[in-house]
Amino acid sequence: MSDIGLPLVSERVRSLHAQMTLDEKIAQLVGYWVDQGDELVAPMAGEMVTSTRYEDATAHGIGHLTRVYGTRPVDPVERAEWLWTEQRRLREQTRLGIPAIVHEECLTGLAAWKAATFPTPLAWGASFDPALVEEMGRLIGDSMRELGIHQGLAPVLDVIRDPRWGRVDECIAEDPYVVGTIGTAYVRGLQDAGIHATLKHFVGYSASQAGRNHAPVHAGGRELADVLLPPFEMAVRDGGARSIMNSYAEIDGVPVATSEELLTGILRERWGFDGVVVADYFSVAFLHTMHAVAEDLGAAAALALRAGIDVELPTGDAFTAPLADAVREGRLDESFVDRAVLRVLAQKEDLGLLDERFDEPPTEIDLDTRAHREVARRLAAESVVLLSNDGTLPLDPAAHARIAVIGPNADSPEALMGCYSFVNHVLAHHPEVPLGLEIPSLVDALRAELTDAAIDVAAGCDVTGDDASGIPAAVAAARAAEVAVVVVGDRAGLFGRGTVGEGNDVDDLELPGLQRRLVEEVVSTGVPTVMVVLSGRPYSIGWALDGPAAPSAVLQAFFPGEEGGVAISEIVSGRTAPSGRLPVSLPRSAGAQPYTYLHPILGGPSEITSADSSPALPFGFGLTYTTFEHTRLAAPSESATSAHFTVSVEVHNTGGRAGVDVVQLYARDPYASVTRPVAQLVGYARVALEPGERTVVQFDVPSARLAFADRRGTRIVEPGDIELWVGASCDDQETRSTMRLTGPVHEVTAADARAVSVAVAAAVQSSL
Amino acid sequence: MSDIGLPLVSERVRSLHAQMTLDEKIAQLVGYWVDQGDELVAPMAGEMVTSTRYEDATAHGIGHLTRVYGTRPVDPVERAEWLWTEQRRLREQTRLGIPAIVHEECLTGLAAWKAATFPTPLAWGASFDPALVEEMGRLIGDSMRELGIHQGLAPVLDVIRDPRWGRVDECIAEDPYVVGTIGTAYVRGLQDAGIHATLKHFVGYSASQAGRNHAPVHAGGRELADVLLPPFEMAVRDGGARSIMNSYAEIDGVPVATSEELLTGILRERWGFDGVVVADYFSVAFLHTMHAVAEDLGAAAALALRAGIDVELPTGDAFTAPLADAVREGRLDESFVDRAVLRVLAQKEDLGLLDERFDEPPTEIDLDTRAHREVARRLAAESVVLLSNDGTLPLDPAAHARIAVIGPNADSPEALMGCYSFVNHVLAHHPEVPLGLEIPSLVDALRAELTDAAIDVAAGCDVTGDDASGIPAAVAAARAAEVAVVVVGDRAGLFGRGTVGEGNDVDDLELPGLQRRLVEEVVSTGVPTVMVVLSGRPYSIGWALDGPAAPSAVLQAFFPGEEGGVAISEIVSGRTAPSGRLPVSLPRSAGAQPYTYLHPILGGPSEITSADSSPALPFGFGLTYTTFEHTRLAAPSESATSAHFTVSVEVHNTGGRAGVDVVQLYARDPYASVTRPVAQLVGYARVALEPGERTVVQFDVPSARLAFADRRGTRIVEPGDIELWVGASCDDQETRSTMRLTGPVHEVTAADARAVSVAVAAAVQSSL
Repeated sequence: MSDIGLPLVSERVRSLHAQMTLDEKIAQLVGYWVDQGDELVAPMAGEMVTSTRYEDATAHGIGHLTRVYGTRPVDPVERAEWLWTEQRRLREQTRLGIPAIVHEECLTGLAAWKAATFPTPLAWGASFDPALVEEMGRLIGDSMRELGIHQGLAPVLDVIRDPRWGRVDECIAEDPYVVGTIGTAYVRGLQDAGIHATLKHFVGYSASQAGRNHAPVHAGGRELADVLLPPFEMAVRDGGARSIMNSYAEIDGVPVATSEELLTGILRERWGFDGVVVADYFSVAFLHTMHAVAEDLGAAAALALRAGIDVELPTGDAFTAPLADAVREGRLDESFVDRAVLRVLAQKEDLGLLDERFDEPPTEIDLDTRAHREVARRLAAESVVLLSNDGTLPLDPAAHARIAVIGPNADSPEALMGCYSFVNHVLAHHPEVPLGLEIPSLVDALRAELTDAAIDVAAGCDVTGDDASGIPAAVAAARAAEVAVVVVGDRAGLFGRGTVGEGNDVDDLELPGLQRRLVEEVVSTGVPTVMVVLSGRPYSIGWALDGPAAPSAVLQAFFPGEEGGVAISEIVSGRTAPSGRLPVSLPRSAGAQPYTYLHPILGGPSEITSADSSPALPFGFGLTYTTFEHTRLAAPSESATSAHFTVSVEVHNTGGRAGVDVVQLYARDPYASVTRPVAQLVGYARVALEPGERTVVQFDVPSARLAFADRRGTRIVEPGDIELWVGASCDDQETRSTMRLTGPVHEVTAADARAVSVAVAAAVQSSL
Repeated sequence: MSDIGLPLVSERVRSLHAQMTLDEKIAQLVGYWVDQGDELVAPMAGEMVTSTRYEDATAHGIGHLTRVYGTRPVDPVERAEWLWTEQRRLREQTRLGIPAIVHEECLTGLAAWKAATFPTPLAWGASFDPALVEEMGRLIGDSMRELGIHQGLAPVLDVIRDPRWGRVDECIAEDPYVVGTIGTAYVRGLQDAGIHATLKHFVGYSASQAGRNHAPVHAGGRELADVLLPPFEMAVRDGGARSIMNSYAEIDGVPVATSEELLTGILRERWGFDGVVVADYFSVAFLHTMHAVAEDLGAAAALALRAGIDVELPTGDAFTAPLADAVREGRLDESFVDRAVLRVLAQKEDLGLLDERFDEPPTEIDLDTRAHREVARRLAAESVVLLSNDGTLPLDPAAHARIAVIGPNADSPEALMGCYSFVNHVLAHHPEVPLGLEIPSLVDALRAELTDAAIDVAAGCDVTGDDASGIPAAVAAARAAEVAVVVVGDRAGLFGRGTVGEGNDVDDLELPGLQRRLVEEVVSTGVPTVMVVLSGRPYSIGWALDGPAAPSAVLQAFFPGEEGGVAISEIVSGRTAPSGRLPVSLPRSAGAQPYTYLHPILGGPSEITSADSSPALPFGFGLTYTTFEHTRLAAPSESATSAHFTVSVEVHNTGGRAGVDVVQLYARDPYASVTRPVAQLVGYARVALEPGERTVVQFDVPSARLAFADRRGTRIVEPGDIELWVGASCDDQETRSTMRLTGPVHEVTAADARAVSVAVAAAVQSSL
């Protein structure tokens, strides 16, 4: 007997559930990781290896099959055949005949051998292009569906709070609205292909102490409500996301995996989510071993299940015998198991799994079609951010017959790839296996693009370490050339392998290893130098933007994927103009962290502190090969707190080349009942303009974009003045206006919340 | 009409209040800063200078006179005569004849010219000696009383959360129990002398983002309840503190100065505080200008007064005409004014001010008596922490005929002084004025102590800057000597003047300027080198503890005050053995911040992050000239969650010299309903032992020391196992035991809360 509400399900699911034994129910609540070995592709995976045999684990059926394609390099066709056979076996040889949900990582594309690898999410943020991300999501979903995968473990909707954290490359931006709009676009794309998206990591993972992975999150309810939760709300309410994964983190001492308030109260009761909550890998067991809020695995299972985690992944540690024992011993009411099982069965019904026969595995699979590569290239091109340029870029073909391409990331396909790319996530453990897809390095791409130039290549140094022996040769190559391109940055990897990625948090934000020195020595030759940063986090490269060691131009690319080398080479040559904008502040230093552009007055530089925390470059910054002027910001003099309002701004390409502007509309509530950020993005739009062309961009802004949690925690829109501006970054009030929100304090409704995420799509452009 | 409760006051106060006009009431709610000029001794003071003339400001009386002695160097006797005259004038020439409360800073001793300057609070923490701090408080209070001062703006009870913050030297420790016990001792001492203590900064100031002064605090209710609030609760409930000052900070978007929940709900309704809440300087106006939660000063006044701030300091910006207008316009019910006025009048009655006649100003004042100097020296001696020693310390007089004393802090009295010392706080603006008291520098003291040695002095470099020109001479001096003492560290000051102190936050935690290089070059001579750090924060000096540049011995002193040079010289000579322990973790780096020893498992180093956040040396660490062994920790097998339990441990001086051990009892709750720290100090005691001597130290521990806020925010003691240990630091489980708390979950009562703070006094010692 229990008073928990059971989900509404179909008659078919209800009757299926009614036949189930406790063992059969519990089997539906866990995954099994067929391929799991000693390779560290999940936190502490080595210590968590299950000893249960596959046959035993699946005797009563199984909820999920874990990373069938993404754990080791397997030929997709062969693996699909195995999978189809396994599904048939589950269907035919288990009592209830329920196939498994197959889930896979798909953060930068499907994590499978030979599958297209797109730019990392931080690059999606830099593109400010939800529509293109949606296209990408659709392509990823199509590939997954071909392979019999049902659920993808993406997108990551954690709002970046500290660049020291290793998983920053998996996140989209430091602005919740950008995360929410782009993340929702990804969800739409993936789910349009029939794949269930999984929003992660719900919630607060990115705000960990000192940017340490899994470390405690110090945050109150208002920060959660105003910064960390909104992207999830947008993707649930507006994107209809079908699954959610919990955050490993504790918030203020309470592990999220045990938070009924978050996993049930906010997610289901407030937002109406009716999908399935899956556990981040091993996070149920971690309640016992790492958070120590459960004395044993049975207690961990009970805590998690009660809070609202339905499925344990990657494999069953706690939701197996320990859970069964807890139920049999009366430590947990079986209704909590029933609730989760009904959700899983409903998901399987929804996916069509209950009817699928698995008769015909695919016999030919192309996971990297021309369409994939085309989207990969466009997204890469849109995501590269030009941070500085004295006119050296684009290269003048006449003046640059000899080019030195220098740096440890210059001739490395891996350097283009994020931590969750198959290349860096899995193939790093299999050096003998070929990449399985074409990934031109930046050197390859420059050679193809600049066919008339002689290109000399010198690594100079490694990404890490202190071996300076290659620097003199690199400097010599630079001296012999008319221009040097120095390609530095990160190598993504997991848990100590690499400089960024899961588990690779840092103490300082200088470029790793000797790379700064390499750049400085090349610059000191006097040869014009272009620095290209291929990284998964923003680094403290203020020295490269200004001062004696500053290169002539700096391009920042956030792991741009398989076509990233090509995209950058086309920007270097001028075939494409850069159009990315910083989705995250370029940090001043590690010692200035955490920092966010969304700070109240006192979160920025002030006379009251000697430690300037202002970033080297602000959120939203990015140059291109032309110039844009923003004028005549027009807003209504007033608008109701419960309404929408329209803001228009004139954009003028004042330079001599075509280009794409990312028009950014910011707002500030100068006085409110709680502290408010000095700047907040409320709308953005990519706008392509020919030289001399003008246009008017119009934003439809729901007043609810300005909502915040009041002292009781209720999200409200307060009446009062609002400052609005458009400029080249959050810091640049190039054209501004003030308007007044009128009427009573407005409590945000579900409809408001839904409207908030579509505002970006409502930005329309009309030529003058 | 209002439903707020008015304080219970005497008939006399009630009738005085009944006669008051609104102007007279409001005059009681503000201070006036007679001496305020352009010198920055408070945040943004330059911009906040009042234009109101003193005569006008006091026409209806005045609540407080602000820093009569502590703003500029004034002769105490002359100033007292002025003050007595002024009080008589208020008594005789204002309608109601109410004298002013005179408040003054007294953090490291009374902040007045010629007054004794004690070690800074971080040194009190290092001493682990509440009894001596109480003696000091009593002496400070005696001096204040002589001068007609009524209220002291100390102690600071902010728990250290980030060493980047400039005000760390004003704080006692990173452990709330140490802060609470020592802070309460200070309150007792000061209040025994008849001076009202002011607990500051209530609450959360020290946990600001990235250690930036006044920056937002990211914290939830449980962190507040378990870490930040307990010292205040101890000093209110157990110490009977008479006043509280608010924190400048916002917590989760809500400025504390507007938090009725904190200033009234927790402070008065839960803890029973019935004193006066004073505003930190300018913090009411800052609600308008810096937090922007009030559109004007009237709104700021209304917010602050409603929340529970009674008096605006240092001077009236908002609690003057803006407040009067707000009341007259009906924006604030006058009962809020009445509530505050009644509290102020009750305080004045309590202080005897309503009857005082001010007939006889003091004619001879000694603010730095032999008693002051004796306590200053003892506290300094007890607070110096020996971090490493290869046997070089104590110096062997036979072997050390020639000593080079090197470093920018070697021959500087100022280097011994904290940011709120009169020397650094005020005299820094008056370089022509003599110190006014005897402050032997470390060089002076070493010369006096080591009379047979030849002492050469060389600064080598400044505390800040990059002038290396003096380093060769310093290195030469070292080469010519048998031993080098290199004295490095901070220069305390305010708002950009100095390397630590209010407003002097830092981006990195290396020693300022070229000091590390100076030490390294001296060490590289091969001459045995003792590094002495005189600092206001712990620095990242791991390199000095281990590795090729490590000196032979390192002494850490946290601004030890006027007798600090003498105390250190006696430790160097061996006359005194070091007995301080680190009251704060010695940080690994700025990039590892924030960090606290009170972390749950995942707040420390783990396999899940590549960024090791463990400190260079742990909380509680400190060597001496002998060795101590801790054995036979004995605890009961079980104890009720609502009871006390007794733990005993045997301490043995196993070395060849007398010494003082700080016996530290730590506990850990291995499994709880929320995450708990891996170590928590639950008792400590200073124990002096002769060579070979053994003793048993017994701790009486209320189970409530292990209380924590549950998910609802209620402080509870949970049943279950508890691990206990004693060792040389929080990390050292030299002798350990496990016991079990039994019975039901116990909700902490007021009596429990009171008992918690007296546990330290209950540590008793019995010889074997």
